[in-house]
Amino acid sequence: MLVEFGGTRVLCAASVQDSVPRWRRGSGQGWVTAEYAMLPRATNTRNDRESVRGKIGGRTHEISRLIGRSLRACVDYKALGENSILLDCDVLQADGGTRTAAITGAYVALADAVSWMRERRMCPGDPLIGSVSAVSVGVVGSVPMLDLCYTEDVAAETDMNVVMTGEGTFVEVQGTAEGAPFDRGALDQLLDLAVAGCEELTLIQREALES
Amino acid sequence: MLVEFGGTRVLCAASVQDSVPRWRRGSGQGWVTAEYAMLPRATNTRNDRESVRGKIGGRTHEISRLIGRSLRACVDYKALGENSILLDCDVLQADGGTRTAAITGAYVALADAVSWMRERRMCPGDPLIGSVSAVSVGVVGSVPMLDLCYTEDVAAETDMNVVMTGEGTFVEVQGTAEGAPFDRGALDQLLDLAVAGCEELTLIQREALES
Amino acid sequence: MLVEFGGTRVLCAASVQDSVPRWRRGSGQGWVTAEYAMLPRATNTRNDRESVRGKIGGRTHEISRLIGRSLRACVDYKALGENSILLDCDVLQADGGTRTAAITGAYVALADAVSWMRERRMCPGDPLIGSVSAVSVGVVGSVPMLDLCYTEDVAAETDMNVVMTGEGTFVEVQGTAEGAPFDRGALDQLLDLAVAGCEELTLIQREALES
Amino acid sequence: MLVEFGGTRVLCAASVQDSVPRWRRGSGQGWVTAEYAMLPRATNTRNDRESVRGKIGGRTHEISRLIGRSLRACVDYKALGENSILLDCDVLQADGGTRTAAITGAYVALADAVSWMRERRMCPGDPLIGSVSAVSVGVVGSVPMLDLCYTEDVAAETDMNVVMTGEGTFVEVQGTAEGAPFDRGALDQLLDLAVAGCEELTLIQREALES
Amino acid sequence: MLVEFGGTRVLCAASVQDSVPRWRRGSGQGWVTAEYAMLPRATNTRNDRESVRGKIGGRTHEISRLIGRSLRACVDYKALGENSILLDCDVLQADGGTRTAAITGAYVALADAVSWMRERRMCPGDPLIGSVSAVSVGVVGSVPMLDLCYTEDVAAETDMNVVMTGEGTFVEVQGTAEGAPFDRGALDQLLDLAVAGCEELTLIQREALES
Amino acid sequence: MLVEFGGTRVLCAASVQDSVPRWRRGSGQGWVTAEYAMLPRATNTRNDRESVRGKIGGRTHEISRLIGRSLRACVDYKALGENSILLDCDVLQADGGTRTAAITGAYVALADAVSWMRERRMCPGDPLIGSVSAVSVGVVGSVPMLDLCYTEDVAAETDMNVVMTGEGTFVEVQGTAEGAPFDRGALDQLLDLAVAGCEELTLIQREALES
Repeated sequence: MLVEFGGTRVLCAASVQDSVPRWRRGSGQGWVTAEYAMLPRATNTRNDRESVRGKIGGRTHEISRLIGRSLRACVDYKALGENSILLDCDVLQADGGTRTAAITGAYVALADAVSWMRERRMCPGDPLIGSVSAVSVGVVGSVPMLDLCYTEDVAAETDMNVVMTGEGTFVEVQGTAEGAPFDRGALDQLLDLAVAGCEELTLIQREALES
Repeated sequence: MLVEFGGTRVLCAASVQDSVPRWRRGSGQGWVTAEYAMLPRATNTRNDRESVRGKIGGRTHEISRLIGRSLRACVDYKALGENSILLDCDVLQADGGTRTAAITGAYVALADAVSWMRERRMCPGDPLIGSVSAVSVGVVGSVPMLDLCYTEDVAAETDMNVVMTGEGTFVEVQGTAEGAPFDRGALDQLLDLAVAGCEELTLIQREALES
Repeated sequence: MLVEFGGTRVLCAASVQDSVPRWRRGSGQGWVTAEYAMLPRATNTRNDRESVRGKIGGRTHEISRLIGRSLRACVDYKALGENSILLDCDVLQADGGTRTAAITGAYVALADAVSWMRERRMCPGDPLIGSVSAVSVGVVGSVPMLDLCYTEDVAAETDMNVVMTGEGTFVEVQGTAEGAPFDRGALDQLLDLAVAGCEELTLIQREALES
Repeated sequence: MLVEFGGTRVLCAASVQDSVPRWRRGSGQGWVTAEYAMLPRATNTRNDRESVRGKIGGRTHEISRLIGRSLRACVDYKALGENSILLDCDVLQADGGTRTAAITGAYVALADAVSWMRERRMCPGDPLIGSVSAVSVGVVGSVPMLDLCYTEDVAAETDMNVVMTGEGTFVEVQGTAEGAPFDRGALDQLLDLAVAGCEELTLIQREALES
Repeated sequence: MLVEFGGTRVLCAASVQDSVPRWRRGSGQGWVTAEYAMLPRATNTRNDRESVRGKIGGRTHEISRLIGRSLRACVDYKALGENSILLDCDVLQADGGTRTAAITGAYVALADAVSWMRERRMCPGDPLIGSVSAVSVGVVGSVPMLDLCYTEDVAAETDMNVVMTGEGTFVEVQGTAEGAPFDRGALDQLLDLAVAGCEELTLIQREALES
Repeated sequence: MLVEFGGTRVLCAASVQDSVPRWRRGSGQGWVTAEYAMLPRATNTRNDRESVRGKIGGRTHEISRLIGRSLRACVDYKALGENSILLDCDVLQADGGTRTAAITGAYVALADAVSWMRERRMCPGDPLIGSVSAVSVGVVGSVPMLDLCYTEDVAAETDMNVVMTGEGTFVEVQGTAEGAPFDRGALDQLLDLAVAGCEELTLIQREALES
């Protein structure tokens, strides 16, 4: 499925395998993992391909791990059985917030894959125990803002990615002072904004899955 | 730009740099090169990412080189000046003929990039001395066919990729006996088909560039 | 310098170079970066060397980036001039909280290096505009706790790393639900604990630098 | 065995293994593959070792794949049983046409290896269903020529590698316009030359195998 | 355990695995191997991390192999059973003679590991058939000297590493003329010095193991 | 040039470059280095290519370094000027003693290259200040022997490589106890044998260079 947030476009696809990583074998439990990548021309200035450089950069690694961790928060490994779901998130066009768009889209791809598996009776129970969505929030020129686009992102003094469940609890909170360090008050304001943003995304995800 | 041939979808983008590879410096001449890649879920069964495996496979290398070589056939290096054009061809969905679709689409991206450069007076002359398009042809069940889709491709006894200029001359002819070796008669039939196919693509390219 | 937090021992060393990365040259500004690594026997079960595997894992990348980003929060690049400081954080023994111990210790190594540079009049101004320390906090069995050791870390439902300045503002907040997602109340409690922990570390850092 | 074509010298050796690649296991069928490489001083100007650069170049990959594909055209996988034959083609001295010399020589090494296997009753049937040879042809100064040496190769406007069976059918046709694109007439002339060249090589191969 | 020779400090640790390398399986025999590495700031001028460069340098490879080979000289593989012992030697601070310090220290770690295994009845017999120690000797300004520190090492005309058993026989002799080649007389003097040095180290090793 | 010692055949070639490694620039001095490699079928059982594995093994590294170091013993860097000589030693067939054959042959290639440079007045003086040759000696079944072939090498209790100048002094002595450790008497006997062997090789080298 293709997710669009403003100028950001991410292709999210789930692949099901009837096996698990070596360290998981024989446990009766499944696994969910993710790979994030950006096409070289997703940004305005071309980035070198990581396949050509022969290694994956730290940023790519970090985001892939974040997406996998976030989605595992809504999965019951036992109900999944010894199956793996791999989520590919490929950024075709980047305009800020690619990692949170990827998480939000990957959840929909994951839920689709789980339905597909359940139709084929591939898993012993219902592995989906909730939903997950994510937003980026930030302080730009002292104003807290939701869903920063690229030019806002660059100008942000503080940048925060928040991953939440459909029930309003936190899965991951990552706030970074890009410029000046921030105080507790700013942190609280950003969290309020994030909570509202994730609520909205949860509704959109539900609609997408129902159609 | 996004090229679609049947079920095959390739994203082609040109990037201009005002520099050339080291071995070309000081020559007053430009360079054109290409990078081809496939998203892991472009095919029905997921392929591992080459960035994750840490090296580029032989097939990817081979196709990147073919695309670069083909497009250089319609470029005047001196008129380009000491600039480089890099063509990224990323396969979003693969259903046979991805390399020939990539060449045909990359030509349009190249021509667009050249127009953009000329508007900015970045090159001393007109670097585009013709056009280039490509088709795949093959013998399936003894019948010569144009534009094989994936299932036909797998079944093909002979598989041939032909790159031609808009004037009807050959830039590259690559024929491979997948099953039984082929004779001169079959080779001639396939070339006839390819000539007709490339003529048609040349018209489509012109329309795309005019609009 | 060697930092010890409970059973965790990290060797932190700063290296000064009178040059900056390529993208920074000619800016008149400096740069600070970090590399984190673990000896193979720092943990109870031996880990393979990343040099032998030929690539750096995602976790190592992620932590190196976090340390560098955290320390840059207390550095004035212009006052540093076109010099780089590289912080090596090598974990000799790991018992939870290695990344926060590394940040706290690396600050002391950084401050020492800056003193050394200023004695030699290597930088145009005073590059140190504050101090930085970090703690890990978590919820273990519903109880918020400071400075988790390894067994507590594994058992933690929520794990949070907080980097703060000596003035009590936030540089980085990274909270992850390892088990069940957490609510706003738990988040607030953890932040309170972290603030207190960082205050204490700031005092210890000052003493270490004065002696 | 050592193949010499003019100034080109290629060492071709076949290695037999009683196993097949993973994707082939349990099929009862064998596999044939090839690895091509050039010594650093095979050419007039030294080339860097690919082992030192840590990766195999696109050209090497491409030629290794071509050699393997060509030789598989004369092999019956079922008659070979679950065995592999790996052909090493190492260029000691290069003066044009190294890939076609490698194919022609590798066929002789392959036929020798098959005889050796059959004496030891290692394969269920006769895996050799024909012979394969290859030539390079080209247009130099408008004149079609067989077996280009290095200086001719560089000067060639069109360069074509043709792989044929001993029965005169085509296995692979690869024609590339190095300078100006070529027309159908030139293509036909080059194919005529190649057919004659391969016929001659087939005779030489037979003599080599009989002695 | 931490070994100190003058300004050189090496952390030596042994890890026991109940498996052996693939080529050793089913032989009923064990294996001993070693990995040597230097922290980036072990020397006065920082060295790049081999994990960051993505490959292990020739010097590191060479020393790891030397340590493994030396220690295997005092091991009975059959008495060890199908177990492996891996010795990690990490140089925290380097001031000459790191490889010989590593061998001497690794022997103590190995002997400790063997005791640990025997207490747990993990090996069929006593795998330790002797002891091993090593010294570096050299000619500095025509004077043969034992245990060169870094400044002496750089100034040495001849540099020799000698590995001996506790019984006074040679396991490895590696002499290199750094400046002028050396004659038989100098070689004999260096060997005499080495014999005396290793005798002393053998006593120290015994004491360390008894305490 | 091709060196043959019994069943061992090594191709040695020298390449001259009018530049030096980065750390040597501006010193007015030259450099000599070597690269050793083995063709996959040089041995009876095929070895994987190091270019395919993507990294150079420890043994290859070690031997390349030994060859370079040995040859530098007969070179005056100042007389060479800021030029480099790279010696490629490629083993076509291996039957024991490949590293010593490589050193002995590489010396002849080096002397040839120096003559070639001096004819072209490329270096300020005569960079060749002596000659270098090498032999392998060993104890097989208690009998000291010169020039072990592969089967003897495998059976050797002690294996020693000795590099000497044409004037009879030592450049490198590397003795390893493969089985039981050796005593001083055995060491002396092996050195006597090596001295005699190197004398003979020095004569053969002179003849080769005069013809």
